[in-house]
Amino acid sequence: MTHVSIIGSGSMAQAISGVLTRGGAEVAIVGRDGTLDPATEVVVLAVPHHAVADVLARHGAALAGKIVVDLTNPVDFATFDSLAVPADGSAAALIAEALPQSHVLKALNTTFAATLATGTVGGDVPTTVLIAGDDTTAKDTLAGLVEAGGLRAIDAGSLRRARELESLGFLQLTLAIGEKLPWTGGFAVIA
Amino acid sequence: MTHVSIIGSGSMAQAISGVLTRGGAEVAIVGRDGTLDPATEVVVLAVPHHAVADVLARHGAALAGKIVVDLTNPVDFATFDSLAVPADGSAAALIAEALPQSHVLKALNTTFAATLATGTVGGDVPTTVLIAGDDTTAKDTLAGLVEAGGLRAIDAGSLRRARELESLGFLQLTLAIGEKLPWTGGFAVIA
Repeated sequence: MTHVSIIGSGSMAQAISGVLTRGGAEVAIVGRDGTLDPATEVVVLAVPHHAVADVLARHGAALAGKIVVDLTNPVDFATFDSLAVPADGSAAALIAEALPQSHVLKALNTTFAATLATGTVGGDVPTTVLIAGDDTTAKDTLAGLVEAGGLRAIDAGSLRRARELESLGFLQLTLAIGEKLPWTGGFAVIA
Repeated sequence: MTHVSIIGSGSMAQAISGVLTRGGAEVAIVGRDGTLDPATEVVVLAVPHHAVADVLARHGAALAGKIVVDLTNPVDFATFDSLAVPADGSAAALIAEALPQSHVLKALNTTFAATLATGTVGGDVPTTVLIAGDDTTAKDTLAGLVEAGGLRAIDAGSLRRARELESLGFLQLTLAIGEKLPWTGGFAVIA
């Protein structure tokens, strides 16, 4: 049984907890200033982008050797017209730089909470979790967890592809906020 | 009846011609060194990114006042690990800069040719064309053309969103080439 800790308390934390629990993982939801169980193998950072630095400052040492999943969409909320990370980089790349001893994955940022909770995009199409990262074993672990929970998973390549996943997440957010997409829909992957 | 010229001769040119003809547009497929009918209202640049500069050099003057649709995915084919345009820009932005008198749209770069030809992503989900651009009338014209041809269309925002559409197109290409997605599938939009 894989031990997973989810840092965060919002709808994404709840939805991911549901998926992974359904899949048989042992899941703990931990507040931003809570304590991580040392047995944790996978840590999901389910906090907004602006809260990540604080979470890393508090929990960084405890994340060494663990799989760390970044699901943030680092939107510049002042303009809602770009991402607030270097144009040739990604939030995930910055997290990986800050956590050289962790296995950082970008995932779960292109799936709205409702599509995780229901397992479908729009009611009919199965939800697919796209996973980017440089450690294949870590990607396989996360893919296994979400597949056990009833979702699909695709290896989206190296951590450099986090840039594209964040672009996709940003575009999807702009479309939902602009009422072109429902929060129960969005981009589905037809494989 | 809207007059459309498609510059190019590959599978995308053929598929787009089919959609627009089905929708009642008068469509001409023009070789890269052919001549544009002056009655043309919409010009689709259905050529690879590396051929765009040459097309603009040949046809630039004739594109003034017209809607120009850029469907390129400017992948750096030497590395297949990034786009070959400035990280904070897009191929569409460069084309708009080169054609200040045209109404440049980014569209049709996130839909594989087979999904245009069949009208579905993977056989079941209707194909959606995402359209970014700064001219709302131009976007409405293109949306009307593709909707008349049986597809769906979504206004994806200003031309700055071309960056995200190109990221999406690039990611989709890497997944298809990596055999994670079929060329008949890919990203579908569930609205």
